[in-house]
Amino acid sequence: MTPIDAYRDLEVRFKRLNVLGEALSVLHWDAAVMMPPGGAEARGEQLATMRVLCHDMITDPSVGDLLDKAADADLNEWQAANLREMRRAYRKSSAIPQPLVSALSKAGSACEHAWRDARKEADFAAVRPLLQEVIDLTLKRGEILAETLDLPLYDALMDDFEPGASAGRISAIFEDYASFLPDFLGSVLEKQRGEGPKPEVEGPFPAARQKQLAELLSGTVGFDFNAGRMDESAHPFSTGYAGDRRITVSYDEADPGFAMMAALHETGHALYEQNLPADWRGQPVGEARGMAIHESQSLLIEMQACRSPEFISYVAPLMRDAFGAQPAFEDAALERLYHWVEPDFIRVDADEVTYPAHVILRFRLEQALLSGDLALADLPEAWNQGMRDLLGIAPPDDRLGCLQDIHWYDGAFGYFPTYTLGAMTAAQLFKAATAADPAILPGLAVGDFAPLRAWLRENVHALASSLSSDDIVERATGAPLDPKAFETHLRQRYLAA
Amino acid sequence: MTPIDAYRDLEVRFKRLNVLGEALSVLHWDAAVMMPPGGAEARGEQLATMRVLCHDMITDPSVGDLLDKAADADLNEWQAANLREMRRAYRKSSAIPQPLVSALSKAGSACEHAWRDARKEADFAAVRPLLQEVIDLTLKRGEILAETLDLPLYDALMDDFEPGASAGRISAIFEDYASFLPDFLGSVLEKQRGEGPKPEVEGPFPAARQKQLAELLSGTVGFDFNAGRMDESAHPFSTGYAGDRRITVSYDEADPGFAMMAALHETGHALYEQNLPADWRGQPVGEARGMAIHESQSLLIEMQACRSPEFISYVAPLMRDAFGAQPAFEDAALERLYHWVEPDFIRVDADEVTYPAHVILRFRLEQALLSGDLALADLPEAWNQGMRDLLGIAPPDDRLGCLQDIHWYDGAFGYFPTYTLGAMTAAQLFKAATAADPAILPGLAVGDFAPLRAWLRENVHALASSLSSDDIVERATGAPLDPKAFETHLRQRYLAA
Repeated sequence: MTPIDAYRDLEVRFKRLNVLGEALSVLHWDAAVMMPPGGAEARGEQLATMRVLCHDMITDPSVGDLLDKAADADLNEWQAANLREMRRAYRKSSAIPQPLVSALSKAGSACEHAWRDARKEADFAAVRPLLQEVIDLTLKRGEILAETLDLPLYDALMDDFEPGASAGRISAIFEDYASFLPDFLGSVLEKQRGEGPKPEVEGPFPAARQKQLAELLSGTVGFDFNAGRMDESAHPFSTGYAGDRRITVSYDEADPGFAMMAALHETGHALYEQNLPADWRGQPVGEARGMAIHESQSLLIEMQACRSPEFISYVAPLMRDAFGAQPAFEDAALERLYHWVEPDFIRVDADEVTYPAHVILRFRLEQALLSGDLALADLPEAWNQGMRDLLGIAPPDDRLGCLQDIHWYDGAFGYFPTYTLGAMTAAQLFKAATAADPAILPGLAVGDFAPLRAWLRENVHALASSLSSDDIVERATGAPLDPKAFETHLRQRYLAA
Repeated sequence: MTPIDAYRDLEVRFKRLNVLGEALSVLHWDAAVMMPPGGAEARGEQLATMRVLCHDMITDPSVGDLLDKAADADLNEWQAANLREMRRAYRKSSAIPQPLVSALSKAGSACEHAWRDARKEADFAAVRPLLQEVIDLTLKRGEILAETLDLPLYDALMDDFEPGASAGRISAIFEDYASFLPDFLGSVLEKQRGEGPKPEVEGPFPAARQKQLAELLSGTVGFDFNAGRMDESAHPFSTGYAGDRRITVSYDEADPGFAMMAALHETGHALYEQNLPADWRGQPVGEARGMAIHESQSLLIEMQACRSPEFISYVAPLMRDAFGAQPAFEDAALERLYHWVEPDFIRVDADEVTYPAHVILRFRLEQALLSGDLALADLPEAWNQGMRDLLGIAPPDDRLGCLQDIHWYDGAFGYFPTYTLGAMTAAQLFKAATAADPAILPGLAVGDFAPLRAWLRENVHALASSLSSDDIVERATGAPLDPKAFETHLRQRYLAA
């Protein structure tokens, strides 16, 4: 077998893996959106069985042989990047023994299940032993990955979500923001107070009308309903693949903005996936780059584009049409409403100014938990102290504190930083986009996203995983990721006269 | 490895196959009910990939070794039946070479695709070459199966749908009906004419109200919405598994009966699946017996129970509530409407009296096509002649003739007889049920299906595939399947004063 034949054989195998991954995403979506309660047990078996099949396929020793042979093939740039991604996937999957994979999966499921009750009861102690087991197994996995990838343990765990991420560099970025925040937040809150109370919306806002508006706006941004759908689920998410992207929202009849912003956010994710290069569909290099770039696409649409004064002036009359006129839906009031800043306990409800504080807290704490610097029993107090330090508030109980997020309980350590890396990347990309094409901002004011989409397609979507996240940002904006672009964006939006 | 260990190992492997089969059913359902058009190509790849995986699993030579070893195990009755079903599945799957499997699948897809246009254009010649290829490949597969199973070719093909079915026996049953039909149909039509014109419903009947009624009635019959859902699709169908049964209907706003009867029909299928023995879930013996018994369950609910005068007296006021009173919804008119007999060209629109004629025609023709007695070019004329012989009418074009059904074009030969075997089985089972428990019929008049469900569970559902179809019928009714029970039912319903 020649090196190029070995490479071609790998393309066939990874394509098959990708096809099964697509099937898994449909089964996941169905479980969250369609499945009746009686289907849960069988669905768990289906997902587990298919994951084992995928694991067996990718860790087949013949894959290692093919990777070795293909190393000598004469490949173009994309093929070489594809081979690099294949090697990374193979090395990571084959490094972890199957019993550890399955122990982690079981421990995560059990812990996540217990967490649902523990959160309701605000009873961290009830879930602590199960979380400890998840952490112990995560450490075992992390040690193996660290050695395999020749990375520090935490960086090795982050590699699952954001390849190439380094805790040292993220720390520098986050600490910069942590120093920026206190004074900035004080000024924002003072200015906000001086401008009067928060505009109040008067509902209810029927879910059916919210749905119409969400679909309309999602289509305006560029979501292709011939290659996707929008449904309802307990928490908004998006999944699927280029030809069939599924996004979900949830409706709060007291708040017309929640579903709308969720739809716009998920549409940002979906645009990325719907515009990945068709020629590389099904290959590792054709997939979306890590979660930071993914989140940058959702936040660029939701936070940068769709909370811009231009877009708010476009959407305000649509909201008046959909729900009837009221003071909160006047352009200026709506802008104040969608730029409202208020420190709160819950990350997912946070505004874009305080959100990074939530992420910085989790980033610090998960590193401390994994390094052993923080005992699990001391997590609640460390959480509350961290909230006081970062935002000057402390939650009254653990439901509003260290029990609020599913991530750790489900075994996801090293994920949180990608939210804020995404927010910062979004700011830097949007600045570069609007500088490069002066038609983008005026377009938002009339619901024309074509210029913005064109820039995103060329500078982000079409690159898929051919470059690292860092290289994508640098190629698109002329500079490495820098928190200053985000801080400048915040200053302009929240402190400009 | 001891024989019993070999048996246990087989249970694990077939469970895994079953789990993948469940996942496939979800992907199929999604494709018919949810998937946007852009997802079709990827879904095709997912289904094909998973089918190949299943085929590889079941034909793994180690399965043959385990089956040999397990033959000496000391098994109880259900385990022995389970092993028998495993052996049948293994022998059939491993007899067919993979290239033939995939050639048939491709030829079926291509032909089915061309058929959609050919049917629209009433142009049989356009699809004939592709259908010829499907037939040629089906013959190849049939010859291999015939040798493997030691059966005549047509019986071997029927084994996919109705294990144990014999063309000879079915011929006798069907010819009995073919002789019964002409005089009987004449008398029915004469009596019907004497009683006035067909009651006419005056719509439109909003789909949303039809949906409410369909869900209400489906729940009344016993569909468990915690373990299933009802949705809309182009053609009604049901799929899924015990904990998560999916049924679909389609709404015709001019005809409130179509969706309702479809829902009741699919609920009959679903009750069977939802009540299969939980202890044997995932094993071959725990699956529903062939398609004839399956169809008997849908037709027992739709035709026997839900078109009984008792149930019609229950449903008439519900229809008046849902859609407003009108003459056609008076009890007597509704009974005439749902007992209306009228020879027509289209099988799926046929009443229960003329439906078997459609099936008998196809049964005769597909045997003639496979034996070479009928050349494909002569099919349209043979079809039209058969319709004249059986029902005294001939379709004006092939769209209403030999192009109306998807089955042959999709590669399903040997399926059609199960519809009428199901109808006859339903009549025989319902007669036995109502004789065994006098509470069943009065129950239907007040929407209480519990007595009927109890009888069905004990006599059909709980048996799964532990017995043959013939043995299930004989155990439940005291006699082998006999067309006379069906004919008696028809005489009582359509000719009684």
